Amino acid sequence: MIDSTDLFYADADLLDTLEHRYRAQLVNSLSGFKSANLVGTVSDSGIPNLAIVSSVVHLGAHPPLMAMVSRPNTVRRDTIENLSANKFFTLNHVNEKIFHRAHQTAARYPADTCEFEAVGLTPVRGKRVDAPYVAEATIKIGLQLEEIKHLDINGTDLVIGRIIELSVPQQAIAEDGYVDIESAGSVAVSGLDSYHTTQRLDRLSYAKPEHPSYSLLRKK
Amino acid sequence: MIDSTDLFYADADLLDTLEHRYRAQLVNSLSGFKSANLVGTVSDSGIPNLAIVSSVVHLGAHPPLMAMVSRPNTVRRDTIENLSANKFFTLNHVNEKIFHRAHQTAARYPADTCEFEAVGLTPVRGKRVDAPYVAEATIKIGLQLEEIKHLDINGTDLVIGRIIELSVPQQAIAEDGYVDIESAGSVAVSGLDSYHTTQRLDRLSYAKPEHPSYSLLRKK
Repeated sequence: MIDSTDLFYADADLLDTLEHRYRAQLVNSLSGFKSANLVGTVSDSGIPNLAIVSSVVHLGAHPPLMAMVSRPNTVRRDTIENLSANKFFTLNHVNEKIFHRAHQTAARYPADTCEFEAVGLTPVRGKRVDAPYVAEATIKIGLQLEEIKHLDINGTDLVIGRIIELSVPQQAIAEDGYVDIESAGSVAVSGLDSYHTTQRLDRLSYAKPEHPSYSLLRKK
Repeated sequence: MIDSTDLFYADADLLDTLEHRYRAQLVNSLSGFKSANLVGTVSDSGIPNLAIVSSVVHLGAHPPLMAMVSRPNTVRRDTIENLSANKFFTLNHVNEKIFHRAHQTAARYPADTCEFEAVGLTPVRGKRVDAPYVAEATIKIGLQLEEIKHLDINGTDLVIGRIIELSVPQQAIAEDGYVDIESAGSVAVSGLDSYHTTQRLDRLSYAKPEHPSYSLLRKK
């Protein structure tokens, strides 16, 4: 691990002067590791659409809500337009076997192109959600659109969905409900284009002021 | 990688009947890997506050904006209250050397307790941001509060900040501006309590419809 004292410092004024692609790479790296999901939707005319997103976040467990940030003027407008016509969408974890194909869904294909076909992934139907899942994903979540919150500050949209159904490998679920997404091959993203597998350091017990947290794994 | 056909399926009705801690573990795992950041703020009476968050997302590069979800009735209320008094906050990447101490900041310490002291991390001042950084973090970002957007759907708050300054190891910055947060030891989180180091699979070129993406690393 790099732990040098040779630091790059930038303030807002310097950031503002950077070449725009350089700034995009730099600032996109700062949030830390991100989730990698494929969003499946279907257009008004029935064309399945698939787009990779790295901005999906947990919003709450009860009701079960997830959110993602949709940026203006990107390929993801297809996704937003489809969501206006059809309120369902799917989230499919990108895993190490499909990350190349998943990345390729970010290309600006024409609106009538089916990204599943273009990149070589297989659409499958769920039981309760009218939107395509990715067959090659081992963790699949089906959601109903609850709200699209426009963020005036930079024109992005926060898309909020409620979980209607989910499917995960039985083996990946721990006794306490935790899903071992590492064992399911889910990858992490950093910046705009870097994909990573993971190696668990530990699971830690619920933090309490009285004593330090302990390992939930060594306890067993 | 688990790729079994033995699947756990749940629909919204089943989710609703699950024991609440089990549901929290399950649903918190579904979004995929998350960033691990320590949020530094300072109270009205000058007490530094530190809280771990796994919900920081990139919102935009120009202007440089980041957002995080703050949940109701958690220790993070301190953070929100401090932000009302003092509009500055810091985000500090949790790395593999400090993840135990970072996790411990989630404990419900009394409001007049300084979490830095309680868990053994060192507050340091930035140049332009009046909030404490974590000396032990190699990636540090200072932000000014722009907006707290209340999400009525479940009572959470979306805290939006603008980057005022940042400091990262010079060695970790690639030619194109990408920050190699893996080399800086930044960790990823899954679920409520699992910490992971990462191993890069690849960096992929900007996706275009005409040809498949190629590795940005092998090109060199």
